[in-house]
Amino acid sequence: MPQYFTDSPQHPASLICELCRLFYDNNWVTGTGGGISIRDVDGPNPDIVYIAPSGIQKERLKPREMFVAELPGKILQTPNEGNDGKPLSADLAKDFKYKPSACTPLFLSCYNMRDAGACIHTHSQNAVMATLIFEDKVEFSMSHIEQIKALPQLAANPKTGKIEKVGSMQFYDTMVLPIIENTPHEEDLTDTLQEAIRDYPNATAVLVRRHGIYVWGENVWKAKVYNEAIDYLLELAIKMHQNGIPLVKK
Amino acid sequence: MPQYFTDSPQHPASLICELCRLFYDNNWVTGTGGGISIRDVDGPNPDIVYIAPSGIQKERLKPREMFVAELPGKILQTPNEGNDGKPLSADLAKDFKYKPSACTPLFLSCYNMRDAGACIHTHSQNAVMATLIFEDKVEFSMSHIEQIKALPQLAANPKTGKIEKVGSMQFYDTMVLPIIENTPHEEDLTDTLQEAIRDYPNATAVLVRRHGIYVWGENVWKAKVYNEAIDYLLELAIKMHQNGIPLVKK
Amino acid sequence: MPQYFTDSPQHPASLICELCRLFYDNNWVTGTGGGISIRDVDGPNPDIVYIAPSGIQKERLKPREMFVAELPGKILQTPNEGNDGKPLSADLAKDFKYKPSACTPLFLSCYNMRDAGACIHTHSQNAVMATLIFEDKVEFSMSHIEQIKALPQLAANPKTGKIEKVGSMQFYDTMVLPIIENTPHEEDLTDTLQEAIRDYPNATAVLVRRHGIYVWGENVWKAKVYNEAIDYLLELAIKMHQNGIPLVKK
Amino acid sequence: MPQYFTDSPQHPASLICELCRLFYDNNWVTGTGGGISIRDVDGPNPDIVYIAPSGIQKERLKPREMFVAELPGKILQTPNEGNDGKPLSADLAKDFKYKPSACTPLFLSCYNMRDAGACIHTHSQNAVMATLIFEDKVEFSMSHIEQIKALPQLAANPKTGKIEKVGSMQFYDTMVLPIIENTPHEEDLTDTLQEAIRDYPNATAVLVRRHGIYVWGENVWKAKVYNEAIDYLLELAIKMHQNGIPLVKK
Repeated sequence: MPQYFTDSPQHPASLICELCRLFYDNNWVTGTGGGISIRDVDGPNPDIVYIAPSGIQKERLKPREMFVAELPGKILQTPNEGNDGKPLSADLAKDFKYKPSACTPLFLSCYNMRDAGACIHTHSQNAVMATLIFEDKVEFSMSHIEQIKALPQLAANPKTGKIEKVGSMQFYDTMVLPIIENTPHEEDLTDTLQEAIRDYPNATAVLVRRHGIYVWGENVWKAKVYNEAIDYLLELAIKMHQNGIPLVKK
Repeated sequence: MPQYFTDSPQHPASLICELCRLFYDNNWVTGTGGGISIRDVDGPNPDIVYIAPSGIQKERLKPREMFVAELPGKILQTPNEGNDGKPLSADLAKDFKYKPSACTPLFLSCYNMRDAGACIHTHSQNAVMATLIFEDKVEFSMSHIEQIKALPQLAANPKTGKIEKVGSMQFYDTMVLPIIENTPHEEDLTDTLQEAIRDYPNATAVLVRRHGIYVWGENVWKAKVYNEAIDYLLELAIKMHQNGIPLVKK
Repeated sequence: MPQYFTDSPQHPASLICELCRLFYDNNWVTGTGGGISIRDVDGPNPDIVYIAPSGIQKERLKPREMFVAELPGKILQTPNEGNDGKPLSADLAKDFKYKPSACTPLFLSCYNMRDAGACIHTHSQNAVMATLIFEDKVEFSMSHIEQIKALPQLAANPKTGKIEKVGSMQFYDTMVLPIIENTPHEEDLTDTLQEAIRDYPNATAVLVRRHGIYVWGENVWKAKVYNEAIDYLLELAIKMHQNGIPLVKK
Repeated sequence: MPQYFTDSPQHPASLICELCRLFYDNNWVTGTGGGISIRDVDGPNPDIVYIAPSGIQKERLKPREMFVAELPGKILQTPNEGNDGKPLSADLAKDFKYKPSACTPLFLSCYNMRDAGACIHTHSQNAVMATLIFEDKVEFSMSHIEQIKALPQLAANPKTGKIEKVGSMQFYDTMVLPIIENTPHEEDLTDTLQEAIRDYPNATAVLVRRHGIYVWGENVWKAKVYNEAIDYLLELAIKMHQNGIPLVKK
């Protein structure tokens, strides 16, 4: 039986825990909200991905609580095995069984359609407010802010047809993020998320109305940076809107 | 004489201290405001509850400063005993005697009426603002936000008549929290809090006008998660209100 | 020559450093703003007070950088002595001489007129905004908020005439804080501060227009709690004002 | 070959890392935004400056990742050398080569034109909002706030013509910061930044529209204090503006 975990702080399972604590402090994953998944892009099998479980306090996750899957989508190991079926967290009831995150099919979509190295899902209030302020819109647009330059310029590789990073966005570029409608069950977002990913080949994130945001990147650090930059922009956009300043400069 | 304390960081008295530091950083219990109580649900006597004392800086509490009570409401031990009557905190006057929290009868109401495992009381500004913005309303309602799914779906057990968790609230459900009027003395809130708990069997929290919120859950971690999720929703609600967005979607 | 310093973390000079770090994180004393002074109320000479120096980064203070004074107002020792005239902080120029805080006469006024045990001065934006929103008013008033109960009820002792704490404010009481006008030189605030302290015997704090706040208490922990509670109330008041909610309930 | 690095926490390269972590927590340099440079004013060669590299997560910088330059502008060493061309950070792709910050010519301008000891560049939202609220203005002005006193009073030395600190600004002084227009490439800001530095001899900072701010000071601690004080003032200014309070008192 293969060993999917090590004690290294750089192991994807360790990094998920580290980043969840950081995201918790940002009010992005409080109340068990949100989730994160990292692909072992530098490991022996780069198709192995680690996914945080469902309904757990994100800031108290332990590495061995992760689900392990292999792309395009086979669950290899769950935290219910290898721990004698006992929960690892003090906050779980005695008869608790870990469940895979409802985000799983959404994370897999980002991995499979965009060759992502990590996916982040938050309940950021800036993301939710952006979808509420523009409740009649299906996309969010913003231009002429320096922070946009932290985002990737994406384009289809003419040989493979794959969407790849070809540089960085420019100051005067317009960042356009699709907004999809929320559904009662998170897994039911899969079709519209995939549609949005197809329809917006320049986007590295999708907003979910009244819910939050999905962000991905080539590796965990790029996903983290894109998520930070987008949240900065959404926060600024709400302030601009409240001060009557247009988000897209003509 | 029974020993009510251990040095374990998982002991209810230790967890009260840990969570109070966290709540302090959230501006929920500054200025000695708020309080928390945890029931020893996994201990030898699950009717033992620990309650933070009155008027103490919440972020500087020490485990042995807790009052110990047995449900339905007998004080078993106070921090004035066992410490030779000397205060444990540097911030207390030399002749200080610990007093039980004025929240005590309110916490006991949650334990006895809802079989709670922990109760949290904060002076969260989001809670206070929600009661001020809707000063003419006796309940707070909000729907169609993903974070609502972190809250429990409650229902009466047909055999016992007890209110129990039967699942999670849905995205399209309306979270309704009763708002009770504040009283000069906190203990005088007991009757109206109990009335609200009876009248709102689906609620796991009660707002107190111009004062704060009481939240409870099946155990300390559930109470923490519910409190976080509700505060997130109240914070979002205030922003929505200021942007003219209705809190309940039609 | 008496020893005014020990290495105890409970020594007034150590507590000044600890609290300044906390206040810095609250945005109350950034940019070298604000100050704090603690009286050695439990020490051998309760007339000894420690005062943070002028113009130093508050979050990087070291205990031996304090000025030592004896009430009613004699400087006993400065950090320029005993350290061979060398600055203790890395942020100071090589030829730096520590200067007493310009707050010194103001702190001394609180000690001498109110028998305070500690004085806190911050540049809290909530305090500044409260004085700007009510720029035509000479006092700030607020009532019917639970957090008011964290503040002391003060009254003149009929025997001594001294203002003393006789209990806590009530929920329905109106907290009234005088607002004095700022002056180009901080020490020139002394007369109006003393006048305000005389004219408002029920107040444990004075707001300074376009500047900040002075808060004091019976000991360092009470001063800290009063400062936190007042800042909480000022923050809430600004939100209430922006939502058109009166600060004093009729 | 000279050794430009030591393990001292007071070494400029160590201080850059320490301050970047602090700035990250303030939301000033998230998403790899912003930058900082420190001159070794107390070292053997005070013309040596250390500059954080481009496009790296600022809160995860390591001292040996700095570029070393000698004034007026010669790069002496890059982090690609001495580390066998391998990146030091986990967040960098395997074939990554460190690039000098695009801020480099701007930092050098502050060093050469103002004899600065350190330069800070942030994407502070307060700075960006200030330039957006006053989008039709080429300078930002504010007066009669106590925090202004944390800023330096600058004047030309009659002997050398150099701009030097001659004291502190006064409460009733008007802080005027020039606002320059952003350019697609950060290095293209150099000319207008230099023009602004020449045209505003009393300013220790320049705002960049829709981008952020550049702040400098006599040494790293002064630059830090000026940056904090200015950000405090910009934050307050936005609140004042939203409450209809003029920023310059007549």
